[in-house]
Amino acid sequence: MRRGAYRRLSVEARRAELIAAALGLFAHRAPEDVSLDDVASAADASRPLVYRYFPGGKQQLYEAALRSAVDELEGCFEEPRTGPLSSRLGNVLDRYLTFVDEHDAGFSALLHGGSVAETSRTSAIVDEVRRAAAEQILLHLTAGEPTEEPGARLRMMVRTWITAVEAASLIWLDENKQPSARELRDWLVDHFVALLTATAATDPQAARVMRAALAAEPAQGPVGALVRRVAPVLGEARHLL
Amino acid sequence: MRRGAYRRLSVEARRAELIAAALGLFAHRAPEDVSLDDVASAADASRPLVYRYFPGGKQQLYEAALRSAVDELEGCFEEPRTGPLSSRLGNVLDRYLTFVDEHDAGFSALLHGGSVAETSRTSAIVDEVRRAAAEQILLHLTAGEPTEEPGARLRMMVRTWITAVEAASLIWLDENKQPSARELRDWLVDHFVALLTATAATDPQAARVMRAALAAEPAQGPVGALVRRVAPVLGEARHLL
Repeated sequence: MRRGAYRRLSVEARRAELIAAALGLFAHRAPEDVSLDDVASAADASRPLVYRYFPGGKQQLYEAALRSAVDELEGCFEEPRTGPLSSRLGNVLDRYLTFVDEHDAGFSALLHGGSVAETSRTSAIVDEVRRAAAEQILLHLTAGEPTEEPGARLRMMVRTWITAVEAASLIWLDENKQPSARELRDWLVDHFVALLTATAATDPQAARVMRAALAAEPAQGPVGALVRRVAPVLGEARHLL
Repeated sequence: MRRGAYRRLSVEARRAELIAAALGLFAHRAPEDVSLDDVASAADASRPLVYRYFPGGKQQLYEAALRSAVDELEGCFEEPRTGPLSSRLGNVLDRYLTFVDEHDAGFSALLHGGSVAETSRTSAIVDEVRRAAAEQILLHLTAGEPTEEPGARLRMMVRTWITAVEAASLIWLDENKQPSARELRDWLVDHFVALLTATAATDPQAARVMRAALAAEPAQGPVGALVRRVAPVLGEARHLL
C-alpha cells in the first residue's frame, strides 16, 4: 500500500513537472517553436517518457499547460469585495498584467487567431476565462445588493471592457510593453469608470451601481484624479448643457 | 478576339456568381454546415463546375466569399469628414450593424475562435479589417490637423474601442439581436465619447481631439444628451472635485 501510494504520488509529481516545463516553454515561444524534445530536455526526461505521460504528444502537452496557466489566470480575478471599486479593479489588473508579462509570447500566440495549436477546445478554454472574469467583476458591481441580478446592459458593458483589456494587453505586448504596466493599468481603470458612466446615462441599474461606487471613492484616488482632469475639458462643452 | 473577350467575361461572371452563392450560404450558416453541393445547387451549377473554378474546394470558396464580404465591410467605414464626430461614428456604426445583421451566423462563426474554416489566412484577413477600421476612425480624429500623426495612446484607444464594438456585436447576435440595432449604436457612440474623455484626462493629443470634437457637437445631438444625463450622476461626486 505505501509503495503504491508512493508511486501514485510520483506519477502525479512527474506529470506536474512535465507540465511546468511545457508551460515554461510555451509561455515565451509560439507553440510551433516548441518541440516535444524541448519539453523533454527542459524537464530532464526522455522523449519516450514524455509520450508515456502525454500519448497525444505536443498538442496534449500544450492543452495541459494551457489548463494550468488558466487556473493561475482565473486566480488573478479573485478580489475581496471591500474598499473603493477603483482599487479593486486596480489590484485585479496588476495581477492580470503581471500574468501577461510572464507569459508574453504564449499569451499572444494563444489569442491571435489561427495559431497552429488553436482548436475548438483551446478556444472554449479561453472563453471560459473570459466568462469567469466577467462574473467576478459583476459580483463587485452588484455586491451592495446581493439579490440584484446584473441586467443585459451591465453584462454587455463588463464583457466589452474585458475584451478591451485583452486587446490592450496584446497591443502592449506588440509594442514591447510600452507604456509601463502601471500606466496601462491606470488607463484601463479610467476606461472602466468612463464606460460605467456612459452606461449609467441610459441604464438605471448602471446608474445605481455608479452612484454607490462614486460614494466610496476617495478624492485622492484615481477616480478623483480622473474627475478633476476631465472637468476642464467638459467645461468647454457648456453649450451642450 | 471577340469570342475570347466574351469567354473571359463569362468566366469572371461565373466565378462571381459562385462566390455570391457561397456568401449567401456562409452568411447564415456555420462553415461546417455548408457543403460544396449546397453551393453548386444555390448557383444552379454542377459539382464538377464548382471544382473547376475552385480546385481547393470548400475552403477556397469560403476564403473567396470571405474576401468579398470583407470588401463590403471595409466600405462601411468610409465616411466623409464633415459634421459632428458623433454623427460620423453613428453613420459608420449603422452600416456596420446592418452588415452584421445580414451576415449573422457567418460573422459569429468567423470571429468565434477555433472555427473549422479558420486558418492563419482567414485570421490575417480579419486583422486587416480591424486595422483598416482603426485607420479610418483615426483619420476623423486628426483630420483637423492633417500633419498630426496619431500617437500611441490614441491608437490604443481606437483599437480597443473597435474590439469592444466587435465583442458587443457578437453578444448582440448571441442575444437574438437585443437591444435594437439603434440602441446598440447609441451605446457604442457613448462608449467612444466616454473612452475619448477618459483618455483625454492623461493624453494631451486626446485632449486636443476631444476639445475640437466637443466644439462641433450640437446641444441636441447624442453628446449633448450624454453630458446632460451624466451631469446629475457626477453631481453626487462633489467630494471628488
